[in-house]
Amino acid sequence: MSAINVGIIGVSGYTGLELVKMLHQHPKFELAYVANSEGGTTLAELHPSLARVCDLPVSKADAKEASRHCELIFLALPHKTAMAFVKPLLELGCRVVDLSADYRLPLELYEKHYTKHTDKENLPHAVYGLPELFRKEIASAALVANPGCFPTSAILGAYPFISKRIAQTPIIIDAKTGVSGAGKKLSDTTHFVHVNDNLFAYNPLAHRHAPEIAHYLGIEDQDVVFVPHLCPVTRGMISSIYMQIDEDVDAKTMLKMFYEHEPFIRIVDSPVEMKNVAGTNFCDIFVKQQGKTLFISSAIDNLERGASSQALVNANIMMHLPEESGVPTLAYVP
Amino acid sequence: MSAINVGIIGVSGYTGLELVKMLHQHPKFELAYVANSEGGTTLAELHPSLARVCDLPVSKADAKEASRHCELIFLALPHKTAMAFVKPLLELGCRVVDLSADYRLPLELYEKHYTKHTDKENLPHAVYGLPELFRKEIASAALVANPGCFPTSAILGAYPFISKRIAQTPIIIDAKTGVSGAGKKLSDTTHFVHVNDNLFAYNPLAHRHAPEIAHYLGIEDQDVVFVPHLCPVTRGMISSIYMQIDEDVDAKTMLKMFYEHEPFIRIVDSPVEMKNVAGTNFCDIFVKQQGKTLFISSAIDNLERGASSQALVNANIMMHLPEESGVPTLAYVP
Amino acid sequence: MSAINVGIIGVSGYTGLELVKMLHQHPKFELAYVANSEGGTTLAELHPSLARVCDLPVSKADAKEASRHCELIFLALPHKTAMAFVKPLLELGCRVVDLSADYRLPLELYEKHYTKHTDKENLPHAVYGLPELFRKEIASAALVANPGCFPTSAILGAYPFISKRIAQTPIIIDAKTGVSGAGKKLSDTTHFVHVNDNLFAYNPLAHRHAPEIAHYLGIEDQDVVFVPHLCPVTRGMISSIYMQIDEDVDAKTMLKMFYEHEPFIRIVDSPVEMKNVAGTNFCDIFVKQQGKTLFISSAIDNLERGASSQALVNANIMMHLPEESGVPTLAYVP
Amino acid sequence: MSAINVGIIGVSGYTGLELVKMLHQHPKFELAYVANSEGGTTLAELHPSLARVCDLPVSKADAKEASRHCELIFLALPHKTAMAFVKPLLELGCRVVDLSADYRLPLELYEKHYTKHTDKENLPHAVYGLPELFRKEIASAALVANPGCFPTSAILGAYPFISKRIAQTPIIIDAKTGVSGAGKKLSDTTHFVHVNDNLFAYNPLAHRHAPEIAHYLGIEDQDVVFVPHLCPVTRGMISSIYMQIDEDVDAKTMLKMFYEHEPFIRIVDSPVEMKNVAGTNFCDIFVKQQGKTLFISSAIDNLERGASSQALVNANIMMHLPEESGVPTLAYVP
Repeated sequence: MSAINVGIIGVSGYTGLELVKMLHQHPKFELAYVANSEGGTTLAELHPSLARVCDLPVSKADAKEASRHCELIFLALPHKTAMAFVKPLLELGCRVVDLSADYRLPLELYEKHYTKHTDKENLPHAVYGLPELFRKEIASAALVANPGCFPTSAILGAYPFISKRIAQTPIIIDAKTGVSGAGKKLSDTTHFVHVNDNLFAYNPLAHRHAPEIAHYLGIEDQDVVFVPHLCPVTRGMISSIYMQIDEDVDAKTMLKMFYEHEPFIRIVDSPVEMKNVAGTNFCDIFVKQQGKTLFISSAIDNLERGASSQALVNANIMMHLPEESGVPTLAYVP
Repeated sequence: MSAINVGIIGVSGYTGLELVKMLHQHPKFELAYVANSEGGTTLAELHPSLARVCDLPVSKADAKEASRHCELIFLALPHKTAMAFVKPLLELGCRVVDLSADYRLPLELYEKHYTKHTDKENLPHAVYGLPELFRKEIASAALVANPGCFPTSAILGAYPFISKRIAQTPIIIDAKTGVSGAGKKLSDTTHFVHVNDNLFAYNPLAHRHAPEIAHYLGIEDQDVVFVPHLCPVTRGMISSIYMQIDEDVDAKTMLKMFYEHEPFIRIVDSPVEMKNVAGTNFCDIFVKQQGKTLFISSAIDNLERGASSQALVNANIMMHLPEESGVPTLAYVP
Repeated sequence: MSAINVGIIGVSGYTGLELVKMLHQHPKFELAYVANSEGGTTLAELHPSLARVCDLPVSKADAKEASRHCELIFLALPHKTAMAFVKPLLELGCRVVDLSADYRLPLELYEKHYTKHTDKENLPHAVYGLPELFRKEIASAALVANPGCFPTSAILGAYPFISKRIAQTPIIIDAKTGVSGAGKKLSDTTHFVHVNDNLFAYNPLAHRHAPEIAHYLGIEDQDVVFVPHLCPVTRGMISSIYMQIDEDVDAKTMLKMFYEHEPFIRIVDSPVEMKNVAGTNFCDIFVKQQGKTLFISSAIDNLERGASSQALVNANIMMHLPEESGVPTLAYVP
Repeated sequence: MSAINVGIIGVSGYTGLELVKMLHQHPKFELAYVANSEGGTTLAELHPSLARVCDLPVSKADAKEASRHCELIFLALPHKTAMAFVKPLLELGCRVVDLSADYRLPLELYEKHYTKHTDKENLPHAVYGLPELFRKEIASAALVANPGCFPTSAILGAYPFISKRIAQTPIIIDAKTGVSGAGKKLSDTTHFVHVNDNLFAYNPLAHRHAPEIAHYLGIEDQDVVFVPHLCPVTRGMISSIYMQIDEDVDAKTMLKMFYEHEPFIRIVDSPVEMKNVAGTNFCDIFVKQQGKTLFISSAIDNLERGASSQALVNANIMMHLPEESGVPTLAYVP
């Protein structure tokens, strides 16, 4: 079987870099096109660590040009910018994995929490790229909306128990994230002096990922209580989830059975640690009960399982390749 | 008014060092005795940063010797070790602020969660040293049991709302702590390589501070759901608290009124940050509501408000000095 | 003796904050005026950790207004901005401690490394504010040029040995600094993700502090080999200095004698550590010899001894107060 | 070509883990034997991040058993322990890459700086495993002594210029290392609270790696001035090297030519950064001149190029495989 040409639009950021690193070593995908908003540079100029490893020229992003080189395009762009590329790419016959928020939510929810949607035509046909829940739909999708990092860790942790939840009790999600989730953009909350030896909640009860979590858990918005915290860590994310469930459930057994055949879920006996999943596509999950209260701790790498490596898994599924092809499993430990 | 002689037993650890730093600059207390388990050294040998600042000789701990020099003794010792000193010190007429867990709980609870108690005589007379709740009792106490760090941040955050709590709903306390809380002792979980760029829960739903929290909130053990997390931070602690309360409560006003005259509580409008209280006795509290769910974020310095500076406030109260005397308020920022 | 009114122009940055923290507790100075470039705010809005501690209104910087309230002004401004204030302040009879680079160098050197100087009148009368070398001149100065952080640590380490240096051999200064030295300004090199778990040299052999070091050591520019490195630390600076000296010198004795009566120099027996001086005005110095090569390790807090606390010492000297008044000596340890 | 069986003795530590991670994905080597001092466990029990990735049973180390399964053994053991295995392994026909210090130095030097040597027979035949200098000798060696991390970064930086060095001038090596270099062992200097926000020199002018550096640079011990510093970083090492050389040398051109055909050396135009080589076998080198003084900055990952990945390169060369087989080049960035 010959190589499948793929491309990345939005290669300057952290998720773009992660995609390059994985695609460079992928057994079947050939990285045939990389672009950012300005072009006229190379991968190693943008990311010095790629020198002598993968130094392709970087083009100014152009849908037509992309479609000429590639069967599938990864969009690693901010929301709103992404939808302007999805439309022409699909028209030109490319398949798309979109890492932005643009196609994750139904129209009404999206416009309430983000902005006006400019591609109402394709929005209803996008598939939410959480393989454990939508593997079959992903396989035949033209457009996959890659989940947000917080929803990935929260949904993977809570979903197996949702049927046992006591009605109308809230699901508390106290999330902790590394700073790379905020991207390369400079801001007061990414300044080293502000973050180092510090920790704080941000957008408590008001983060845009909360409706995405509620929607895919199939519960009401107001039943998701979501508070993210910024931690002095580069990459990694833990969602500590508290649910009220039927007391007679054996949570650990239930969890193990639910994910029995999943290659990228590990049910662990000790509380999960950020570092054990850093650099990989794994989601590690730990569960413990106290009466009706369930404590679930779910860890991912926000840039991998929360973005780029999950995008790659989706692309593998779309192209009928083995799901694990080129997907990283060796953690950045120690 | 002349100086009041005080002493510290257990001066080798972090909380001992913090006490030295504060007492060295205190306007009324004179540090007349410092001891550890071995003696034969000096403060600057134990803590090089004290060179040329406060370099007293360190004695081998001895109750009689301590009582000869001091009216009040701070015990910065592990639990179980502390009670062996409390008994003779009280007999010799010293007043005591005990930073260990030995006198925080009623006998039955203590023996269930710690070990056999060897000073049943004094245990019932100890006063729990949380000034906002027990100021009057502290003033006349011979023995003050200084609260644990987690209970301090959790109780200060939750207590004002406890009367509005919906019956039988759990109080979720998702706590984040710096590594200094684990003390100077070497262990796998304090190794830099393990902690750096990492984060994890430990003793989830099984930490010994949970019954202390429940007891002083006046609720059932099983209604406190307590999960501490270790963070790559030296000092600082945030308790993220989730409670179900009457929807018609105006939480922020209620909180402000409750702590209106408290010198060391700050109600803040943005989510609390660890660094803003580092090095100080402040407890910063933020609150926000979503339907019946209350989110409270309560920040302290685990070594100060969670141990040493709170001990100093208790000593000030016991000696009828102004509560703020020598208590640090200037944060380690930036 | 009544209070002496002082003010700070440039109160938004880190060094401004440090000055506020020290002046707030100073036994003789009264903080009577604080300003930044825009005004219309308060200290606690700029620096939330100051809430309930020191919440003065912040004015729009104005020399006349400042001189009306104060006898002495601290300028915590960028170079070039500072000299525009020095001139009118001196005319209005204020004494000035300038934390910028504007008056540290002779005209020719300054204009070569910085920019055109607009206050040639006052430049020759400024005194370099390194108390160990210029205490007497500082006492009677109207204008003190507060040294840079790198020069402070390098000069204090190297100066005692300069007379024993082997002619024409270079002095190697390999400096390591925390990120707060770069200020609050956002830049790629202060982004948490760039700095965390990283370390690198910057401006090697081309940093503007090199000529300042050479000038006050009294040696040729080309004989100072200066390479600063950025480290994942908030505050702290170590200069590792390598010199060629006469082999028969007993370096440690020489060092101890040189600084025998200095209150803020500590000669230590083990290699210096950043944390032992963090938050203080101390300069810790360690020295060791290998043949003709001398290794000196000199540690300061870049924001304190490298800026604000040294400025306060200078102000104390200028006002004939005890040099240690209100100067911090208790380190941010642990 | 069929697989080549290899094994690791000493699999509990950081360098053992790194070897497992690389060998698990190696195209030709098959990891057929892993052992530590006690056995009776599995890789995932020792290193939880290996769960579901590579979970071999771990044996109690035994030379005979090892030789039965493997053609080549990696020894990731402390010095002194290693030589006890080298002898029997060589006798049993295994080839060995020894990551300890035991075979790096001539007898006299070794016994002076370490301990009595118990395998004088094999010591003279060991080849020093720095491929850029000894590629040919490695190819036919039965025993390769893998270089220390400090010597690797220092020698690779300084060697190209050694012929231009001005006689009898010292080479200053100011090294900065991450904490993983100290291993998993608990000690005061690996405690998070001690290291975080700190930095300090250790064993200045007295580190055991200094004679190794001098020996392979071919200069006198006293001409190497070596001071390592511990930094709050998990992995990474930078050697800042200062040499006196002929002024008419064009250092950058000389450096580029020297390493022209080397796959794992990158000559860079901006100062090297630890993170750009983290997780890889690259050594990044930057050079700049000021008169006769040369500043060289050389960065490696202390666990990879400073230990495990360099060991793998040596094994590849010994087995006549392509040098780059299975050797990591994608950095842990961001």
